[in-house]
Amino acid sequence: MTSTLVLLRHGESTWNAENLFTGWVDVPLSPKGEGEAKRGGELLREAGVLPDVLHTSLLRRAISTANIALDVADRHWIPVRRDWRLNERHYGALQGKNKKQTLETYGEEQFMLWRRSYDTPPPEIELGSEYSQDGDPRYAGLGAELPRTECLKDVVARLLPYWESAIVPDLEAGRTVLVAAHGNSLRALVKHLDGISDEDIAGLNIPTGIPLRYDLDEDFKPTNPGGTYLDPEAAEKAAAAVANQGR
Amino acid sequence: MTSTLVLLRHGESTWNAENLFTGWVDVPLSPKGEGEAKRGGELLREAGVLPDVLHTSLLRRAISTANIALDVADRHWIPVRRDWRLNERHYGALQGKNKKQTLETYGEEQFMLWRRSYDTPPPEIELGSEYSQDGDPRYAGLGAELPRTECLKDVVARLLPYWESAIVPDLEAGRTVLVAAHGNSLRALVKHLDGISDEDIAGLNIPTGIPLRYDLDEDFKPTNPGGTYLDPEAAEKAAAAVANQGR
Repeated sequence: MTSTLVLLRHGESTWNAENLFTGWVDVPLSPKGEGEAKRGGELLREAGVLPDVLHTSLLRRAISTANIALDVADRHWIPVRRDWRLNERHYGALQGKNKKQTLETYGEEQFMLWRRSYDTPPPEIELGSEYSQDGDPRYAGLGAELPRTECLKDVVARLLPYWESAIVPDLEAGRTVLVAAHGNSLRALVKHLDGISDEDIAGLNIPTGIPLRYDLDEDFKPTNPGGTYLDPEAAEKAAAAVANQGR
Repeated sequence: MTSTLVLLRHGESTWNAENLFTGWVDVPLSPKGEGEAKRGGELLREAGVLPDVLHTSLLRRAISTANIALDVADRHWIPVRRDWRLNERHYGALQGKNKKQTLETYGEEQFMLWRRSYDTPPPEIELGSEYSQDGDPRYAGLGAELPRTECLKDVVARLLPYWESAIVPDLEAGRTVLVAAHGNSLRALVKHLDGISDEDIAGLNIPTGIPLRYDLDEDFKPTNPGGTYLDPEAAEKAAAAVANQGR
């Protein structure tokens, strides 16, 4: 038995547009991002890839992207599951900071280490500060598990239990699963699916708003390694643009 | 132990605006309806009535209303449960028909019987016809339970099992529950909560977009019979307008 998994990275947020590190700060989609989400829904509909269940993070930009795309694809009525383990990487003390300014202040090497190294997290965010999530009711149950910063390795570690316990059972039940999430939580998932090394994952960028379909075998390994973008040309162009962020 | 239940009737749909019987036809909100949903979210936020879990029907106008209102109230991240048992009353062969025209064709008595009698359903819809739901994937599991028409009594009968099995457990767990649904599925629920007779329920109209809060005791009976609208003045005006539909 095979199953279908569709990954959808949220469209542009207002902070993407302003070139700020976002992480767990709960900013909305920009008008451009809403348009990307619509296009994502059209691609699902045109390809006849119809999700039976949705998994999202607890962040507005992923939730809105899914709401918009599923409405366009006429699948607004499917069951929804949400979990913090699908959240974007926590960007620590960099949350709210301008990317270009951070690059200029800390230099290319440190900047790229924070952005792309597998196991070096940014400095921890101060509890109680403007862009910290302590006190946010949606994370009240996390206690000491609430991150204060994360590297991609940390994201993999907190994502995989959710993959095994929540997403795989939906795939096992024969459902087409849509995961609407973020650049780094989706990179973590793709790293696992495609068996990408800690080094090579640095070079992988997932474009926004373009559904990425994985056909999985009975061991939940891709029969189409790397997945299949529903709009391959747009995906290629967008991935190049993401790689140039902060310049 | 007490619990809080909030009922929210969806804002104006495009077919409300055109004065058509809608029932299970899955039409979107009108721009006015989207504005009502925003206002609903503002009322929740201002009153500090913050839902912990959402229950919706499988129809776009209720789902969108909830999505918009919860986004405004900063509760977009709460768990969601959806079920056909919260759907609007199935309007049978009247679905897609103009209300004013139906009134003129069939006369006041028949018209009011279909709209307001407790136990007289409209004629059944023809299977395979334009506004029938057979073949709609979201109802594929219903089999012979798929309605072809419903009176309010039928709605009560299919709603109450969901109340008992899905909503009450959330209330028991101490959650503030938001039910985003429809004129008649909410009337059915209010009839049960307030113990309204089969005769008296005819006179009850629930306005759109104004959250209605019930404080429930440990037997899930209201300590504020009739509930409390978060904007009582607007509710009074709107209820009068609903009563005049089709004129």
